[in-house]
Amino acid sequence: MLKNQGILKINLEAISTNYARLKQEAGPETKIAAVVKANGYGLGAGKIAEILSKQGCQDFCVFSPEEGQDLRRTVKNSRIFILCGFTDEEENVYTENNLIPMIGSFEEIEAYKKLAQKQNRKLTAFLNFSASMNRLGFGADDTTKLLADKNKLDGIEIAGIMTHFACADEASPMNESQYEFFKTIAAHFPNAEKSMCNSPGLFRDKKYHYDLARCGMALYGLNPAPEMKNPMQPVVSISLPVISRRAVQKNESVGYGASYIFDKPSQIATVSAGYADGISRSLSNKGALYWKGYKCPIRGRVSMDLTAVSLENVPEHEYPHPGDMMEFIGPHQDADTVANDAGTIGYEILTSLGRRYKREYI
Amino acid sequence: MLKNQGILKINLEAISTNYARLKQEAGPETKIAAVVKANGYGLGAGKIAEILSKQGCQDFCVFSPEEGQDLRRTVKNSRIFILCGFTDEEENVYTENNLIPMIGSFEEIEAYKKLAQKQNRKLTAFLNFSASMNRLGFGADDTTKLLADKNKLDGIEIAGIMTHFACADEASPMNESQYEFFKTIAAHFPNAEKSMCNSPGLFRDKKYHYDLARCGMALYGLNPAPEMKNPMQPVVSISLPVISRRAVQKNESVGYGASYIFDKPSQIATVSAGYADGISRSLSNKGALYWKGYKCPIRGRVSMDLTAVSLENVPEHEYPHPGDMMEFIGPHQDADTVANDAGTIGYEILTSLGRRYKREYI
Repeated sequence: MLKNQGILKINLEAISTNYARLKQEAGPETKIAAVVKANGYGLGAGKIAEILSKQGCQDFCVFSPEEGQDLRRTVKNSRIFILCGFTDEEENVYTENNLIPMIGSFEEIEAYKKLAQKQNRKLTAFLNFSASMNRLGFGADDTTKLLADKNKLDGIEIAGIMTHFACADEASPMNESQYEFFKTIAAHFPNAEKSMCNSPGLFRDKKYHYDLARCGMALYGLNPAPEMKNPMQPVVSISLPVISRRAVQKNESVGYGASYIFDKPSQIATVSAGYADGISRSLSNKGALYWKGYKCPIRGRVSMDLTAVSLENVPEHEYPHPGDMMEFIGPHQDADTVANDAGTIGYEILTSLGRRYKREYI
Repeated sequence: MLKNQGILKINLEAISTNYARLKQEAGPETKIAAVVKANGYGLGAGKIAEILSKQGCQDFCVFSPEEGQDLRRTVKNSRIFILCGFTDEEENVYTENNLIPMIGSFEEIEAYKKLAQKQNRKLTAFLNFSASMNRLGFGADDTTKLLADKNKLDGIEIAGIMTHFACADEASPMNESQYEFFKTIAAHFPNAEKSMCNSPGLFRDKKYHYDLARCGMALYGLNPAPEMKNPMQPVVSISLPVISRRAVQKNESVGYGASYIFDKPSQIATVSAGYADGISRSLSNKGALYWKGYKCPIRGRVSMDLTAVSLENVPEHEYPHPGDMMEFIGPHQDADTVANDAGTIGYEILTSLGRRYKREYI
């Protein structure tokens, strides 16, 4: 049967297994907050939060108050942390949905205190310290200022403090210096929860674990510790229908710009997904799809809706037909492998998948 | 005021102006079909089709029958062409929504004839000939077979024929050979509409124009003829809020992997958008944002929700504050420029923009 829609399967059971594996790695003293920002790395924040809630997860992280508001429809009683901090343009969204901002600047403190005054109650926050990541959170100077005058925090209940690793996916000396920095700060907040680890950090050193680890990528099956065999279960599989197959002659080309010229007569198959579906254009003439386990290299440029592959490794009697589903992500290549071909990381492969797939949750 | 949401402005008036400009380029004999596949290159197919319909556009192209079904809610009487061809898994979607497939294989012909028989009426299609693009459409061998036995088409009303340029964005000899190929085929279908041009083709040579041009990118303000000044009006602008600003010392780094080390004391601003919002990770240490016209180079790796830039070109008294909106796409850099920095094309920048922007239609 002729088909045009790619199928994106999301294995919720594997996400559960990964959550259990992370809990085991973390040990009984450390809670796991599930990071479901960017719509759960593109996989569906609501569905993922629902299954993890049932499993006992009571802490979730998203990026923005808007994401927090969406998530609150699914998780009624869990904590929801807002990684971007506090933005007063959306101040009502925070309080109406009971969202906890990760505050990282004096401007945010002032704005949050003003809101607390207006509502005549204490509001809860975590503090975010930057520790050389230098994207968000109190930088070195501001940290010194804040620790010298903690009265600045009056009116806010500091439930916890956090920092974020820059290089936890490798055995970098920076991990240790970030840890030392955080330890110094932690001494100033003896009663606050401490949170340092992302997924890679959790697999690095037990002393980094503290009270709360914030895990995203490992939940979704990406490898948190690239130097070892991936300890996580694969979550995503994507298959793409062949919509055309043809013979090409020597010296013929395929795709825009005629960027690939065949040096011998060949067979090509075209699948109906392209860069609008997250088959990154940087996979042009680089990546591959799989058919019955045979590697089918991408030939020519990936276009918006279409990708062509060579069947050079497939025996003629096993050529795929229109309607057959080829593997983009599955048993023969995972998102990390695709990312490597595309010159990026698995995270970006997941967040780019787009809206045209038939999504099936297992 | 502290903010976290990027703003994506889509100038529908500019799309109208661009449509008029394309009509002028095409001349009175050539209709323009608006290509609104992939949700109108990520900008909103419904809104775009609505405004172009009012302007008299009666032909639209999308990729899949699912996209055609969505579009049919907006355009009641216009023709909707399905570029992926005919797929019988969705056969009812075609007939219920009066969609015209661009058929490019014998399998599709057979399946479409079967549907016509089942419904006991003639069904309309265009035929798609590949002309060395080799993604979709009848390849050289199948074209010969088909032209030798046009009875194969009995039961289908062939309203038109089409092909697609591989290299229309440059003065490639391939354009002329594709034209010659198409001219030969066209002679076999004297009464059918002929369609050859995409946006770049329309600006290449008047003899390519024929009856119907299929234009997408130029409608959306991308440059259809890179060797000349862009004749299209800009359609997209994106501004991103600063959520953090800080001083960094010499030898400090920013972002994951500490991929950028400052060689002198500097100021950086972090905006709340990252690769999940289409700020491609390949812009890490490459692209730039603009603030009050000053170029602010991206430093360190773009992360999922955050991008950091250096304020090295901004005078101190003009530093942006949290809540200020920096330009990602706008008067100082268009989508084509961003694409160039990212090593891709403007199309992929647009289709990657993601769901987290506040979208404003002008």
